[in-house]
Amino acid sequence: MSDTERATRDLLVELLGQFYAKGWVSGTGGGICGPADGGGLLLAPTGVHKERVRQDEFFTVDPRDDRVIKTPGNPDLRPSECKGIFCLAARDRGARSVVHSHALSAVLAGDLAAGGDHVALRDLEMLKGIRGVGNRDVHLLPVIRNTPREAELVEHVASVLADDRFSGAFAVLVADHGAYIWGEDVWEAKRHAAVYHYLFEALVARRDRSTEVTA
Amino acid sequence: MSDTERATRDLLVELLGQFYAKGWVSGTGGGICGPADGGGLLLAPTGVHKERVRQDEFFTVDPRDDRVIKTPGNPDLRPSECKGIFCLAARDRGARSVVHSHALSAVLAGDLAAGGDHVALRDLEMLKGIRGVGNRDVHLLPVIRNTPREAELVEHVASVLADDRFSGAFAVLVADHGAYIWGEDVWEAKRHAAVYHYLFEALVARRDRSTEVTA
Amino acid sequence: MSDTERATRDLLVELLGQFYAKGWVSGTGGGICGPADGGGLLLAPTGVHKERVRQDEFFTVDPRDDRVIKTPGNPDLRPSECKGIFCLAARDRGARSVVHSHALSAVLAGDLAAGGDHVALRDLEMLKGIRGVGNRDVHLLPVIRNTPREAELVEHVASVLADDRFSGAFAVLVADHGAYIWGEDVWEAKRHAAVYHYLFEALVARRDRSTEVTA
Amino acid sequence: MSDTERATRDLLVELLGQFYAKGWVSGTGGGICGPADGGGLLLAPTGVHKERVRQDEFFTVDPRDDRVIKTPGNPDLRPSECKGIFCLAARDRGARSVVHSHALSAVLAGDLAAGGDHVALRDLEMLKGIRGVGNRDVHLLPVIRNTPREAELVEHVASVLADDRFSGAFAVLVADHGAYIWGEDVWEAKRHAAVYHYLFEALVARRDRSTEVTA
Repeated sequence: MSDTERATRDLLVELLGQFYAKGWVSGTGGGICGPADGGGLLLAPTGVHKERVRQDEFFTVDPRDDRVIKTPGNPDLRPSECKGIFCLAARDRGARSVVHSHALSAVLAGDLAAGGDHVALRDLEMLKGIRGVGNRDVHLLPVIRNTPREAELVEHVASVLADDRFSGAFAVLVADHGAYIWGEDVWEAKRHAAVYHYLFEALVARRDRSTEVTA
Repeated sequence: MSDTERATRDLLVELLGQFYAKGWVSGTGGGICGPADGGGLLLAPTGVHKERVRQDEFFTVDPRDDRVIKTPGNPDLRPSECKGIFCLAARDRGARSVVHSHALSAVLAGDLAAGGDHVALRDLEMLKGIRGVGNRDVHLLPVIRNTPREAELVEHVASVLADDRFSGAFAVLVADHGAYIWGEDVWEAKRHAAVYHYLFEALVARRDRSTEVTA
Repeated sequence: MSDTERATRDLLVELLGQFYAKGWVSGTGGGICGPADGGGLLLAPTGVHKERVRQDEFFTVDPRDDRVIKTPGNPDLRPSECKGIFCLAARDRGARSVVHSHALSAVLAGDLAAGGDHVALRDLEMLKGIRGVGNRDVHLLPVIRNTPREAELVEHVASVLADDRFSGAFAVLVADHGAYIWGEDVWEAKRHAAVYHYLFEALVARRDRSTEVTA
Repeated sequence: MSDTERATRDLLVELLGQFYAKGWVSGTGGGICGPADGGGLLLAPTGVHKERVRQDEFFTVDPRDDRVIKTPGNPDLRPSECKGIFCLAARDRGARSVVHSHALSAVLAGDLAAGGDHVALRDLEMLKGIRGVGNRDVHLLPVIRNTPREAELVEHVASVLADDRFSGAFAVLVADHGAYIWGEDVWEAKRHAAVYHYLFEALVARRDRSTEVTA
């Protein structure tokens, strides 16, 4: 293992602790992947408390075909269900790191989907934290329906990634579930995750207030 | 004491610190029990600041008859009032670890009891974090009335545990009080606690928003 | 200095850090006093960031006459404005530790004063965390008007402490300001502070919800 | 580098960690500057995760003409966009430390701008934490419109700093963006930041409640 991958594993473990403190991962849900040696993605195991994942517990998957190419020593571990969507974001958007969030703010933002299939994020300086977006832009994020298993979400995500309205999006909201948020590396994925969660909270807070005023 | 019990004591102390940070235990209320050597349950003392409990301050109780079978060295300590319900969950549900939460979100969720005796948790991916529950299920939790002393709650809890509507529940809400949440081991109890608290917060947040919209 | 006072100073410093994290002390406002050797009270300096107070920066005051009987080495420090009320609580209620909170939840609870001079705390298990109070009691706390300087609050506090309606109270709310909360030692003051803040948050949250429902 | 500047760099790094935990800086937005040797200002780089800035990554700028007079070793770093406003506050108000906050509470407070150009902060003890302000004062803060780039905000800020209504203000709110908050040293800037954020939260919380009551 290269020093780079070792550092990435350390960083992923540290960020999982931060994301747990923020409520983006909890129970055993949510997670993050990052770049492995040789073009693969480092993926945490499923069903584990994400804030307690260790450096030697990641799987390596090949994003070209979703195949597991390296398993951790512990034979009881199975790869996270996020695998399909993480690999899809890598293939379709060049993502090298993807955050899967179960934050309540993402769920409440998804509840506000306009026309049933998107939310419009606007009027906030923080939009500038998203690559290619200015603070006067209206930034659209797709909102897709949830499915019984995360693996089945893949085709829905593929469909909205192909939708021109969302070509500038670095995230997909899943109604009743959370969000997938990505970047070209771990740092951009982390920045995008911070920005999008902020925008979700702002959307919900401002909607609450305008409802009160107009009621 | 076996290494296993020693590790469990360490873990319980660490989790009490986490639960304090989350507001699940506060004042001297709330707590968690876990498996002791020989089939007993490790129980914290009553009336102490739970985030400051030490490894050598746990009682061991026999869940078959609620009897204290081992006391900590400090003679000033008395066992937590949770004893009766913790032992009941062990006997009736095979629980080996039970979290008692005073979280405000649990109280506010209990305020929303439909028909006075339950809440329905639904439309959230996080439901999958409860053993045996899918994200399209409607998961019912019993809500019981509070009583002057926790020991007296035991018969109310026993009664709802016998109610077929709640056979899949790993938690009981106590109105004006909080919740008891269990699992087959400490890890499952912790996961269930994270999931149920998330569901309580979501229930309250979504109810607020739909009230606003329909008002 | 006795080992007991040294331990108390360590504990006060640690608790100020916790209270800062909770938002009970912030800016340079809020604080806590505790027992000094010889019957005095340890009091933090005014105008300092309370989460950064050091063990050697406390004043000792005599609660019988509010007199400073020991000053810290640093001559730039002056004793906290809380002095008068802390000493009053010690004289009139036997308090050996008093928390002064600027928590927003205390301010919002004070906004709800019924009849302009008290709030009624009820229907919560957490009431049992207050000495002498049961979970079915209706517990009244006085709410007094704020004054330009904290020292001037003393006579208002003295007046409500003499009011029979509040004989069981271990706290006074100050409108637009916060709360004073005490106990017979640091541990009881800390427990009472945790319980009252919880009750303040619950009062505000439940009032919000019942307003919505009845609107 | 003097010991004083070294200590200031350590303090700025520590405070950026605290501000991140509070949500005042996030993504890569927000920040703080402090006094450098020789009358300059220490400024963090742009586009970096502020909670991870290191002691050796600060720029030094001359507030008289906004010029960078010292660069960190790493040639990839560029100075924060806050430069113009930080230097302006230094020139026009004698600020030696300025906090730039992206807190959601600042955005929501800005949404409440009366007459479109200010908010009135009143009826709170915490006002006394602002230099020269009493708890019975009505303290006005300017609210300016956001612009595509932070550098362009400078002239708007200069204009409100020249407005007599705001002569006692140590902060400017930027709609849809956040706030700039300053002090004569790092400690006063930190105290003012704590106080203003508290006042923003209180303003929003109380407005919500009075809307409900009068609705």
